Amino acid sequence: MSNPSVSPKIKPWSRRQLLKWGLTGTGVAGAALSWRGLTNKSQVSARIPPITKQALSVTGNGFNPMAILRDFDYGTIKHENGRKIREFQLIAESSTFQLNSAVSFVSWNVNNRVPGPTLRATAGDRLRIIFRNEGGHSHSLHFHGNHRSEVDGVKPVRQGKEVIYEFDAEPYGVHLYHCHIAPVTRHVSKGLYGMFIIDPPEGRPPADEMVLVMGGYDINNDESNELYAFNGLPNYYRDHPIQIYQNQLVRLYVLNMIEFDPAVTFHIHANMFRVYRTGRTLKPNEETDVITMGTAERHILEFSYPYPGEYMFHPHQDVVAEHGCMGNFQVIPS
Amino acid sequence: MSNPSVSPKIKPWSRRQLLKWGLTGTGVAGAALSWRGLTNKSQVSARIPPITKQALSVTGNGFNPMAILRDFDYGTIKHENGRKIREFQLIAESSTFQLNSAVSFVSWNVNNRVPGPTLRATAGDRLRIIFRNEGGHSHSLHFHGNHRSEVDGVKPVRQGKEVIYEFDAEPYGVHLYHCHIAPVTRHVSKGLYGMFIIDPPEGRPPADEMVLVMGGYDINNDESNELYAFNGLPNYYRDHPIQIYQNQLVRLYVLNMIEFDPAVTFHIHANMFRVYRTGRTLKPNEETDVITMGTAERHILEFSYPYPGEYMFHPHQDVVAEHGCMGNFQVIPS
Amino acid sequence: MSNPSVSPKIKPWSRRQLLKWGLTGTGVAGAALSWRGLTNKSQVSARIPPITKQALSVTGNGFNPMAILRDFDYGTIKHENGRKIREFQLIAESSTFQLNSAVSFVSWNVNNRVPGPTLRATAGDRLRIIFRNEGGHSHSLHFHGNHRSEVDGVKPVRQGKEVIYEFDAEPYGVHLYHCHIAPVTRHVSKGLYGMFIIDPPEGRPPADEMVLVMGGYDINNDESNELYAFNGLPNYYRDHPIQIYQNQLVRLYVLNMIEFDPAVTFHIHANMFRVYRTGRTLKPNEETDVITMGTAERHILEFSYPYPGEYMFHPHQDVVAEHGCMGNFQVIPS
Repeated sequence: MSNPSVSPKIKPWSRRQLLKWGLTGTGVAGAALSWRGLTNKSQVSARIPPITKQALSVTGNGFNPMAILRDFDYGTIKHENGRKIREFQLIAESSTFQLNSAVSFVSWNVNNRVPGPTLRATAGDRLRIIFRNEGGHSHSLHFHGNHRSEVDGVKPVRQGKEVIYEFDAEPYGVHLYHCHIAPVTRHVSKGLYGMFIIDPPEGRPPADEMVLVMGGYDINNDESNELYAFNGLPNYYRDHPIQIYQNQLVRLYVLNMIEFDPAVTFHIHANMFRVYRTGRTLKPNEETDVITMGTAERHILEFSYPYPGEYMFHPHQDVVAEHGCMGNFQVIPS
Repeated sequence: MSNPSVSPKIKPWSRRQLLKWGLTGTGVAGAALSWRGLTNKSQVSARIPPITKQALSVTGNGFNPMAILRDFDYGTIKHENGRKIREFQLIAESSTFQLNSAVSFVSWNVNNRVPGPTLRATAGDRLRIIFRNEGGHSHSLHFHGNHRSEVDGVKPVRQGKEVIYEFDAEPYGVHLYHCHIAPVTRHVSKGLYGMFIIDPPEGRPPADEMVLVMGGYDINNDESNELYAFNGLPNYYRDHPIQIYQNQLVRLYVLNMIEFDPAVTFHIHANMFRVYRTGRTLKPNEETDVITMGTAERHILEFSYPYPGEYMFHPHQDVVAEHGCMGNFQVIPS
Repeated sequence: MSNPSVSPKIKPWSRRQLLKWGLTGTGVAGAALSWRGLTNKSQVSARIPPITKQALSVTGNGFNPMAILRDFDYGTIKHENGRKIREFQLIAESSTFQLNSAVSFVSWNVNNRVPGPTLRATAGDRLRIIFRNEGGHSHSLHFHGNHRSEVDGVKPVRQGKEVIYEFDAEPYGVHLYHCHIAPVTRHVSKGLYGMFIIDPPEGRPPADEMVLVMGGYDINNDESNELYAFNGLPNYYRDHPIQIYQNQLVRLYVLNMIEFDPAVTFHIHANMFRVYRTGRTLKPNEETDVITMGTAERHILEFSYPYPGEYMFHPHQDVVAEHGCMGNFQVIPS
């Protein structure tokens, strides 16, 4: 199923994603998409603004933060010996990204995007991660969550080699994966990480669900970050606000993958969010608008905006926000 | 109602504050004041040691951390079209403060004090913030808490201009306000911030209530702090211990406004405190004596000291404590 | 009761510890020890792998992280005037440790080990800490937990002097002690600290209990850390994995005593842990695999590994892990 009207700068995975969202070229503007929760038991739908071609085509890096935002990779279902297996294809790559008009950066990443694909499964699913290293250096994929030591992903996979990590998705929550080859600071800060969501079997209430991964870029190799970003590109959501509907429940999956800085906070303007720490609860732990997150911490944050307009989100360590970790929500009247 | 016996170094707002506390010149030493909770339903009183003139007069900066400590600005009540409005007057200023005997610092602040006034209201109140900029640069006041984007305070207010931020006080909790003009790191670290408390309608139990705002000063503009302070002046409460009564419930409203450092902790000696995270609960979340707070995090901490004597409080990042963020409680026998 | 077969490099306290664990020279390898919980009401036992002589003898520093790991100092019971007193002997010392093959470090510490002894008592016990300073500089011992200001341990104890800190063990939880002489950053980062556990009267369920204290070493006195360690020696548990049994409940008492870094996280691989914040609860606060801890924060973390194999644990600020704060669990089939 080809889609010739989509900009050729969008790579195949993005085109597939466009189709998954019901984007069919020119006919999307002005009409809200109805998105059906992809967990088994979720029947009611959440309302998500349509993504315009323009919003998806502005980057020449081969990936687009606006596409990454609501892009969940559920893998391919296979059946073997009467058991269902959810199979994912992940490739370590090395790619040069233009972080802004002045700075290009050699990234090590998964599937030519930073962060890598957001893998998603339901607790109890059997997962098969086929990991191929085309990144030029030795890499690995270490997953958070429960599994045997044999698939812990701390052993190097050499350039050109392939390895399979197979384990059950346990426990439900927000997890992550990242390269665990030394120096891990380097392999992570260059972009070799992604989010890994395990849904509870009963699902969560319908919501406009999004992924925000905070990352840092050490441009001059001085073991500190010169640039920061949500979902790979500095200031992308500042310049291209994330559209959400007024009074629509938003569910953020937020992960801090910033190396070299001990911790950052995440803050949204003019509102409070409910925190589900590590996504390990079905009831919120607390409500606030600023939460401290050390490297590799991740939470589910839920909120809805009652009034239309534009609202910033950013770490409240303003030096991090001022160097690229800055975004806007644009709340559309319902 | 003038009070000629108060030192002329104390500015008018301080004199008014003295009167609010029942301080009438020379007659205060040795007798405990009975302070009635200012929320509507609070009938039982908490016992607060009298503040001596000496404790209030030692600073030539125009503000005094001991006065700031228990100073809550409830605004002025107005009635318009049958609705009650709580009106606050805030002025951005630029003032030179003597941080210690060697260091003077050009501060940007609200109402010539760091932190600015602690605004206080009850959930549901209509608030009107009249903000006038006399600070020489463009500034703004961004409030945490719920409100429309139009009053989010991220737009510059030019020197000499006035703007009104009007919104309902929601939700109850400990919030803050600060300038949001770029670079925010600079505008905040120079002192343009304050606390904003919204009480729950049912109030909280009577207590000796205090505000502690942790701030950092980047003296040499190197994007790191050389000095730190509770309520504006380095080491003030170290040299002038905060008097509290034995066995009296103390309710601290603590806010971390330190830029450039990712996070600090707050610690009290020889005791534990109960934590009400972001003040968003009526029951404590946990009990500890060290709590990590990222920039813009704030909590209610409750405790009482069972034994008389002197007890330190400070961040347990001792480098922060050693550079000015250090204080003492002096517990007086009851 | 002497034990001539133990390596002479192990100091007396270690030999006593070996005996406490039932280690009788050569007969330990291959057989699991049955360890009875030392709190009064604990009747069921936890299974702990035997500690081999080899694991305990590899360091020439006079202390051994593997011995420190499960070493709890319950003091000496005395009876005075009908009251039971738990008495501890702590001596401030200055000793040169070999942190790795290239770096030796002049440490200030308690009882010639970093961290100092893990003191342990039950809530309500009367404690007597006899502190003697043989460290060459003035030192003190400041305890966390509840006590009078007279025994808060912020006053200098001069070289050669002895002081007694006596107080009741309250409240139950994970606490700490450390030198509080200025500059505290220096006295703490050189090693003058230890853990102080107060058990709840009803005890906790049987578990393989361990202490992990994270520390930093500022080798070149530049107010930042060049090396880090769990229990004193960089990379010790990386090179000498901690053996635990499959499916055995492990109870970690974790303390962050790293100065100069605002916060670190603690992370275990391939598993989740339940968090008892500050040890102040009997029911867990949350479950995760990465937790942020500011300086002086400490928690109880509980978990068991369902699969044999080797699993890393480390702060997820990988720069801290890469400089020595790295360890392994070796899970042995049950």
